[in-house]
Amino acid sequence: MRAADLASTYPTVHPETPAVEAARLLAGQNLPGLIVVDGSGTPKTILPGTQVLRLAVPAYCQEDPALARVIDEGAADVFLRELGDRTVADTLPKQQRELPVVDRAATVLEIAALMARTRTPLVAVVDDDGLLTGAITLDALLDRLVEQ
Amino acid sequence: MRAADLASTYPTVHPETPAVEAARLLAGQNLPGLIVVDGSGTPKTILPGTQVLRLAVPAYCQEDPALARVIDEGAADVFLRELGDRTVADTLPKQQRELPVVDRAATVLEIAALMARTRTPLVAVVDDDGLLTGAITLDALLDRLVEQ
Repeated sequence: MRAADLASTYPTVHPETPAVEAARLLAGQNLPGLIVVDGSGTPKTILPGTQVLRLAVPAYCQEDPALARVIDEGAADVFLRELGDRTVADTLPKQQRELPVVDRAATVLEIAALMARTRTPLVAVVDDDGLLTGAITLDALLDRLVEQ
Repeated sequence: MRAADLASTYPTVHPETPAVEAARLLAGQNLPGLIVVDGSGTPKTILPGTQVLRLAVPAYCQEDPALARVIDEGAADVFLRELGDRTVADTLPKQQRELPVVDRAATVLEIAALMARTRTPLVAVVDDDGLLTGAITLDALLDRLVEQ
């Protein structure tokens, strides 16, 4: 059982995708995160769902929870306005951490260790050229690990 | 729109719950994480799904991915053996971080900021006595934020 056998097709976004569209994709399909690919199809970043939230919560709310409590306008309005005209590229972390990306021969244990280490419930699978061929979610991996 | 309006019932585990049972719960119901409560019903820890994986991946695989690659036995066997006779208590982090727990009056923006800060796609909602009354998942929150 290798990554190639576990991977499924997974929707992607590009750096130039509007942030609002990326948030809608995440919400609409209940995805565990976003895979950002460049024009050639190489994964550049994998964002856990919780970190996509970070893009849309105003900085003053993140720094001071007491401020978030007193905002009396609709949260959805704040959220969408905060995303505004930004693109996915505007919202990527400045510092590149270890990417949850594996080749097609990765074992289940490698994938599990990588998800745990990067705290990302989503791993991209690439071919020998580094191009995305599919993805493995935490749910899919757990089903495989636990339900045998 | 406050936490009390968003919260749904959510399964819990106890410190003495066998780790295998906790992993099966996570996998079987596609949960984003586990809420660990004590005997009185107070949330003690909330574990993101990726950190539950950490419990079940042998330490030598986490430290050296090259070793994980060469293991030729079934991953599910390794996983279940690693969980062994351990309980949830054995697998909790030694150091307590900020818990993703809110009171019933928390706003959507507070909840979103807390999920982002703790990198946990799951927030527990407690009453005035600190007892669990429900939980809010990232999926539920995003649906509320994006689909209006």
